[in-house]
Amino acid sequence: GFAKLDHHRKVRQGFEEVVYCQGKTTEHLVKIYQTLAGEGIDVLGTRATREQYEAVQVVLPEAKWDEVSRILKVEKREKELKGRIVVCTGGTADVPVAEEAAQVAEFFGTKVTRLYDVGVAGIHRLLSNMPAFEDASCVVAVAGMEGALAGVVAGLVDVPVIAVPTSVGYGANFGGVSALLTMLNSCANGITVVNIDNGYGAAYVATQINRL
Amino acid sequence: GFAKLDHHRKVRQGFEEVVYCQGKTTEHLVKIYQTLAGEGIDVLGTRATREQYEAVQVVLPEAKWDEVSRILKVEKREKELKGRIVVCTGGTADVPVAEEAAQVAEFFGTKVTRLYDVGVAGIHRLLSNMPAFEDASCVVAVAGMEGALAGVVAGLVDVPVIAVPTSVGYGANFGGVSALLTMLNSCANGITVVNIDNGYGAAYVATQINRL
Amino acid sequence: GFAKLDHHRKVRQGFEEVVYCQGKTTEHLVKIYQTLAGEGIDVLGTRATREQYEAVQVVLPEAKWDEVSRILKVEKREKELKGRIVVCTGGTADVPVAEEAAQVAEFFGTKVTRLYDVGVAGIHRLLSNMPAFEDASCVVAVAGMEGALAGVVAGLVDVPVIAVPTSVGYGANFGGVSALLTMLNSCANGITVVNIDNGYGAAYVATQINRL
Amino acid sequence: GFAKLDHHRKVRQGFEEVVYCQGKTTEHLVKIYQTLAGEGIDVLGTRATREQYEAVQVVLPEAKWDEVSRILKVEKREKELKGRIVVCTGGTADVPVAEEAAQVAEFFGTKVTRLYDVGVAGIHRLLSNMPAFEDASCVVAVAGMEGALAGVVAGLVDVPVIAVPTSVGYGANFGGVSALLTMLNSCANGITVVNIDNGYGAAYVATQINRL
Amino acid sequence: GFAKLDHHRKVRQGFEEVVYCQGKTTEHLVKIYQTLAGEGIDVLGTRATREQYEAVQVVLPEAKWDEVSRILKVEKREKELKGRIVVCTGGTADVPVAEEAAQVAEFFGTKVTRLYDVGVAGIHRLLSNMPAFEDASCVVAVAGMEGALAGVVAGLVDVPVIAVPTSVGYGANFGGVSALLTMLNSCANGITVVNIDNGYGAAYVATQINRL
Amino acid sequence: GFAKLDHHRKVRQGFEEVVYCQGKTTEHLVKIYQTLAGEGIDVLGTRATREQYEAVQVVLPEAKWDEVSRILKVEKREKELKGRIVVCTGGTADVPVAEEAAQVAEFFGTKVTRLYDVGVAGIHRLLSNMPAFEDASCVVAVAGMEGALAGVVAGLVDVPVIAVPTSVGYGANFGGVSALLTMLNSCANGITVVNIDNGYGAAYVATQINRL
Amino acid sequence: GFAKLDHHRKVRQGFEEVVYCQGKTTEHLVKIYQTLAGEGIDVLGTRATREQYEAVQVVLPEAKWDEVSRILKVEKREKELKGRIVVCTGGTADVPVAEEAAQVAEFFGTKVTRLYDVGVAGIHRLLSNMPAFEDASCVVAVAGMEGALAGVVAGLVDVPVIAVPTSVGYGANFGGVSALLTMLNSCANGITVVNIDNGYGAAYVATQINRL
Amino acid sequence: GFAKLDHHRKVRQGFEEVVYCQGKTTEHLVKIYQTLAGEGIDVLGTRATREQYEAVQVVLPEAKWDEVSRILKVEKREKELKGRIVVCTGGTADVPVAEEAAQVAEFFGTKVTRLYDVGVAGIHRLLSNMPAFEDASCVVAVAGMEGALAGVVAGLVDVPVIAVPTSVGYGANFGGVSALLTMLNSCANGITVVNIDNGYGAAYVATQINRL
Ligand SMILES: Nc1ncnc2c1ncn2[C@@H]1O[C@H](COP(=O)(O)O)[C@@H](O)[C@H]1O
Ligand SMILES: Nc1ncnc2c1ncn2[C@@H]1O[C@H](COP(=O)(O)O)[C@@H](O)[C@H]1O
Ligand SMILES: Nc1ncnc2c1ncn2[C@@H]1O[C@H](COP(=O)(O)O)[C@@H](O)[C@H]1O
Ligand SMILES: Nc1ncnc2c1ncn2[C@@H]1O[C@H](COP(=O)(O)O)[C@@H](O)[C@H]1O
Ligand SMILES: [Mg+2]
Ligand SMILES: [Mg+2]
Ligand SMILES: [Mg+2]
Ligand SMILES: [Mg+2]
Ligand SMILES: [Mg+2]
Ligand SMILES: [Mg+2]
Ligand SMILES: [Mg+2]
Ligand SMILES: [Mg+2]
Repeated sequence: GFAKLDHHRKVRQGFEEVVYCQGKTTEHLVKIYQTLAGEGIDVLGTRATREQYEAVQVVLPEAKWDEVSRILKVEKREKELKGRIVVCTGGTADVPVAEEAAQVAEFFGTKVTRLYDVGVAGIHRLLSNMPAFEDASCVVAVAGMEGALAGVVAGLVDVPVIAVPTSVGYGANFGGVSALLTMLNSCANGITVVNIDNGYGAAYVATQINRL
Repeated sequence: GFAKLDHHRKVRQGFEEVVYCQGKTTEHLVKIYQTLAGEGIDVLGTRATREQYEAVQVVLPEAKWDEVSRILKVEKREKELKGRIVVCTGGTADVPVAEEAAQVAEFFGTKVTRLYDVGVAGIHRLLSNMPAFEDASCVVAVAGMEGALAGVVAGLVDVPVIAVPTSVGYGANFGGVSALLTMLNSCANGITVVNIDNGYGAAYVATQINRL
Repeated sequence: GFAKLDHHRKVRQGFEEVVYCQGKTTEHLVKIYQTLAGEGIDVLGTRATREQYEAVQVVLPEAKWDEVSRILKVEKREKELKGRIVVCTGGTADVPVAEEAAQVAEFFGTKVTRLYDVGVAGIHRLLSNMPAFEDASCVVAVAGMEGALAGVVAGLVDVPVIAVPTSVGYGANFGGVSALLTMLNSCANGITVVNIDNGYGAAYVATQINRL
Repeated sequence: GFAKLDHHRKVRQGFEEVVYCQGKTTEHLVKIYQTLAGEGIDVLGTRATREQYEAVQVVLPEAKWDEVSRILKVEKREKELKGRIVVCTGGTADVPVAEEAAQVAEFFGTKVTRLYDVGVAGIHRLLSNMPAFEDASCVVAVAGMEGALAGVVAGLVDVPVIAVPTSVGYGANFGGVSALLTMLNSCANGITVVNIDNGYGAAYVATQINRL
Repeated sequence: GFAKLDHHRKVRQGFEEVVYCQGKTTEHLVKIYQTLAGEGIDVLGTRATREQYEAVQVVLPEAKWDEVSRILKVEKREKELKGRIVVCTGGTADVPVAEEAAQVAEFFGTKVTRLYDVGVAGIHRLLSNMPAFEDASCVVAVAGMEGALAGVVAGLVDVPVIAVPTSVGYGANFGGVSALLTMLNSCANGITVVNIDNGYGAAYVATQINRL
Repeated sequence: GFAKLDHHRKVRQGFEEVVYCQGKTTEHLVKIYQTLAGEGIDVLGTRATREQYEAVQVVLPEAKWDEVSRILKVEKREKELKGRIVVCTGGTADVPVAEEAAQVAEFFGTKVTRLYDVGVAGIHRLLSNMPAFEDASCVVAVAGMEGALAGVVAGLVDVPVIAVPTSVGYGANFGGVSALLTMLNSCANGITVVNIDNGYGAAYVATQINRL
Repeated sequence: GFAKLDHHRKVRQGFEEVVYCQGKTTEHLVKIYQTLAGEGIDVLGTRATREQYEAVQVVLPEAKWDEVSRILKVEKREKELKGRIVVCTGGTADVPVAEEAAQVAEFFGTKVTRLYDVGVAGIHRLLSNMPAFEDASCVVAVAGMEGALAGVVAGLVDVPVIAVPTSVGYGANFGGVSALLTMLNSCANGITVVNIDNGYGAAYVATQINRL
Repeated sequence: GFAKLDHHRKVRQGFEEVVYCQGKTTEHLVKIYQTLAGEGIDVLGTRATREQYEAVQVVLPEAKWDEVSRILKVEKREKELKGRIVVCTGGTADVPVAEEAAQVAEFFGTKVTRLYDVGVAGIHRLLSNMPAFEDASCVVAVAGMEGALAGVVAGLVDVPVIAVPTSVGYGANFGGVSALLTMLNSCANGITVVNIDNGYGAAYVATQINRL
């Protein structure tokens, strides 16, 4: 059951391999990191636990893990960040997903402006930050509960908004379904949606757009 | 199966009887209107069809029907409208539900300010109308699709917002579920929710609050 | 990712800041409490764990935590409670949500009458307590499982009933959906609904109404 | 595709054959009625349309159809009704389902007391009718929208309550799901539930119980 | 938040009090058992954990707990069991729910025949046991996964079948929804349904029927 | 938007082209039939309306349409039917779907035994027909409502059972979901499932198996 | 209830006004078209019926309506189409949604390559058309039923894929939910999703990307 | 509640007994293994935990447990494997379910070719492995998330494809529902579906087909 690593993706599609750490056994994960790092490839994994981090660190001491985004990285080359995107969130509880998006985008070479806790329940927080959106190539809007941030932002900017619903909330949020439906049904133009909590997927598309 | 009319509600709870016309046979409905009007009671029905209207009009020529709200009314007494509430909508397609709310509230003696097509996809439409909310005792916010209007309004006013999700939209709106969930999960404070398309119910509670 | 505290809400909307403790790291939460208390602001948090309480208590020994409601409070000023609302529940298992509602309302300056375990399966328990509702400005009705309490109460009183569905029950209660749907579909007039287990939200609106 | 008629059910289980008319072609249905009536068997069909009735009447002029319950009957023998059950409804819109239940029960030889429009939104209507339940062997409680009637009745009587959710309502009633969940989750003891709008099924079980 | 015990239910409805232990704090539960036992009342609780049992046993050493049914009982009086019902299951994994039903029914004075692991996937197991159903006043059919047992049994007996869907299964069983829907949609006559895993509720109704 | 006809499927996979008529404009459909028939290919379409049939018949008078299965066929070659499968149904209302399966299988060269209205509510109808299953290569079990037929059959035969849930039923059948879930969760071995009402798909797989 | 037309969108966001015709009264729609055309603005409406078209044509004879896409257009200026996108579909039944996307994109000035009926059930149809994707700035992938097209395409190209689930299919497609979920859960990178049947929304974003 | 073991299945249907270990108490499970092994029967159990394995090993030291598939086996006879099937997966996370299928099929005497991590996001991985499918009697396609593998494979081979949706994924995968719906709605011919994560069920049917 060893994963078929896609070493040629960098060549074919211009993106480094990204490892989805969730559910992988520690042993399996350590081997993947060793293999890739051994070939001199910068490697980033999402949804890594502290346990996975500590096991990887034994063999690759330069590995770094961020508790908030749960990203586990072995990155040797310095990158020049290009273009610019905005990653914004409705609340502070959405920050882990936003950081997954932001750090993946940066790993892919995209410059990121963060704008957190600007949800629509206090619309002045967003309106007073509109200059941050100027000249961005696109926006990643991360929100749980009612998930209305994406629609409001899309009405204010003229670039694509990639909406990331989060599972933040309780009761009738149904694990992120409420925010997902809000975003899919937005009457604002210029919104597309990724899976619940999928910061990674949003960062990938944002980078594709940012490179155009 | 003749409905047990609640003639004493006006005395007991201060609200005139309201008839739910949907699904009632024309014959049954005509009798209800005749009975109530015969006792000198002003009578309002919701969700009336043109056919029902025309049948009632035969026996009660003073009956009036509004095509948009589908309200069928026999109202003899002039009412002095008191206090004030705001009824606002996200789009024009939400207006039928909003008019059900507004006209029922007026029938119950409440003064209503209408503010339509001010949804969050173009937030300036709402922001430039904020003075309309001043001194209102409460707000009825009517919206379909993403339903984000209620949350944004609640963040801007300091009175209760009664949110009415509508079935306006298609696809993943699931007949109003998307707007309903948005409203139930709003991170703004001061929102409560009624059933999908239930303008009547919102008007009832708004009037209760307006009378306090 | 530090939360943008809204110090001006007390001025703008007349409500003290309330902290949603669930999911916040202990470190982050302690800082929020310290900041607010340091500015002489009374602070209340909902859904606090014992661990969070113990950490806050180290720096703010006057902090108090209620095991049932999970409310964590630093309250220095005495408040004069005004008006009156009723908070009632269907069963004893709904009490934690009801206490969240009751204690938040009291923190906001509202007088509360509690009426617990008066669900419709034994309707005499409710009927023999009707005097408790007299002169209340509104009612918060908390119920899980079938959630029928709100509708029965709304048929008996003439003030707004704020219905709080709870996740109490099992099987086809679907984590509170059964009670939520019951409340949204009530044929009684005068009911509005908040999210499942959202005692806080009900208290906020009840206080808004109570202040009118 | 001609239905395999079960002529022996009367002998085996003591119940006459009942035909489910919905979806059957007129031609097929007429044959079934002719066959059964030709063998001297009393025959009742549920959910018959006026068209089906008129076609059957051509060959069996003694056929009778009730517009409310949509029951189509060819009944020659007089029946002595035994025992007694109560069929009650929350509103007038539930009467068609209740009449299906009541008339099927009568066809099976059960005496029926009808108690309609006694829903919990005006609980006095039910409480002032409690004597009707005395000595009944069981109760069939028919309700849509919030469906709370069954639970309140079960708390007041000491015989089985068979709950029939109806599809009456709109929006978040989801075609009867709201009432169904209310009834399945009732905290009252002594309730069992049948499918949405299944008056027939309730009548069958009620008759089984009434015969014990 | 202390539960309002219903000491008069035995008199009013002929059923001893039953305690729902799930979610109750140990301290609260011990007090309930002490109070009831102190008044000389036999007391049965459902869904009790081993921890709850051990705490109750400290003050009431005669308390008995059954690991399978999770019933916690203090029963002093000998009971003469009357009539007879059958409790059957589709598989062995359904036995815990079936035992809740069987032991509650026995506590209420009903004689019970158990017939376990006779699901429809091996229909001969049921057919070779048909004599067990003779003269039973009703049947409690407990099944998870596809839940087809209830329909097959109802086609074979002529007494009411109370169907109990269980949460047994995985994947598309959706926590018991698959069995619940099967039972609600059965084409067999004579079936009514209770909530998922609600052995208690089935036993209550079965006893009501058995006493007629 | 003209469909890319797959003329080579007969060669590549041994199956003639089948047209899905639902939703196709009459004009488009007539062209497809003409094209295929013009090339001397036998052509079968599923879910054809009478209108589509009449339009095709104008240009291809040899076209035949079956009102029950809604299959529209232009078949010139005689086929020798091989092997044998059984197509069985729970009720008579499931026959249209079963006939779609049976006639498609015959078009593909498979011999079919039909066994209709043998649902589990009267299990003797199935048991007395067991010889029909002997030597069949597989079984297509078609059932709506509770959908239990597939599981019972699979427990009695030792060949694959292809289960086809139908949308027959009402209320909590949710358009066929109840039968679908029953079949997916069957505790019998040897069952696989196709989409609701997909007689065509079952016939295709049954033929693949029958040819082995 | 007259819509607030947004005449400045062309200036602010570079997109002409688009009218959502569904549900608008003919009278209302004619006025909107007259107003816009009167100001010399090119106007496009989606989801227009033949009736709406005929009414608009009376006052604006130059209006054009496409039966497949249901787009109703008054377009006077010639446009130079820039860049290039690909719009592809899984089947022929998805073409109406694809044409809505393609024609809207063209109205906004984007060059479009159409690639229809290349679904994954016959993967060679897609693979033999790969050159069509070269140099496209992005792809709009339209598919119903299983909706797998988007994921396969995204694995083959290195530009953003905007996935449009359609309501094409039956049974367990749940009106497009099956395709929606497939697209949200794709393991391919570079996919974002819009609402079911929302060709318009996809075209808007595709144009935004195409203009970068 | 001891399980009724079906010792004669081997004779009647040609399949050895298989034990479903999940949820069984260790004590109960050990007895089942001892009984069967004592009678000289080879016994395989699915979904066994390490704890169950260790307990069984105490009394049956020859027991073997595979951590990935969670299969616990006591197998004494050597088997000659016949025919051949292919078991393939979309990703590495689907391997546990695939191994359950593969090892069960081998236990039943079927030869298995494994083809893992060939999901549609990188279609070349599948296309370059097509020779592996030649002469296989059928295919078991295991996939989570979007679950598109089954449809693509079915379009490429001419034998039955048994699709196994897995619960792999997050967010809007809803525990495997997304893959389940994809598979049920596939436009490819020749697919049937089993329950989410049901590798065992797929292996059973695959073996039935393989033996034909
Ligand atoms: N958080 C994430 N959510 C969704 N997809 C991811 C995530 N992280 C990585 N991926 C994708 O998963 C692939 C690796 O999966 P695997 O082969 O299981 O490690 C990567 O190539 C990415 O396309
Ligand atoms: N549009 C509406 N939605 C919900 N409830 C309504 C509506 N219109 C009227 N009602 C309520 O329905 C009751 C009348 O129902 P009925 O007895 O069936 O005519 C009135 O007393 C109102 O409380
Ligand atoms: N397992 C159970 N499922 C549903 N209801 C139960 C169960 N056990 C006890 N009950 C009911 O719950 C009531 C006690 O609830 P409580 O007051 O919370 O102890 C009893 O009177 C019973 O009617
Ligand atoms: N009733 C049906 N249900 C599902 N698929 C069908 C049905 N009838 C035909 N098909 C499939 O649909 C394909 C033709 O679709 P189309 O190209 O739209 O005509 C055929 O090759 C069959 O695979
Ligand atoms: Mg905040
Ligand atoms: Mg507008
Ligand atoms: Mg109680
Ligand atoms: Mg009424
Ligand atoms: Mg068994
Ligand atoms: Mg039949
Ligand atoms: Mg095609
Ligand atoms: Mg991989």
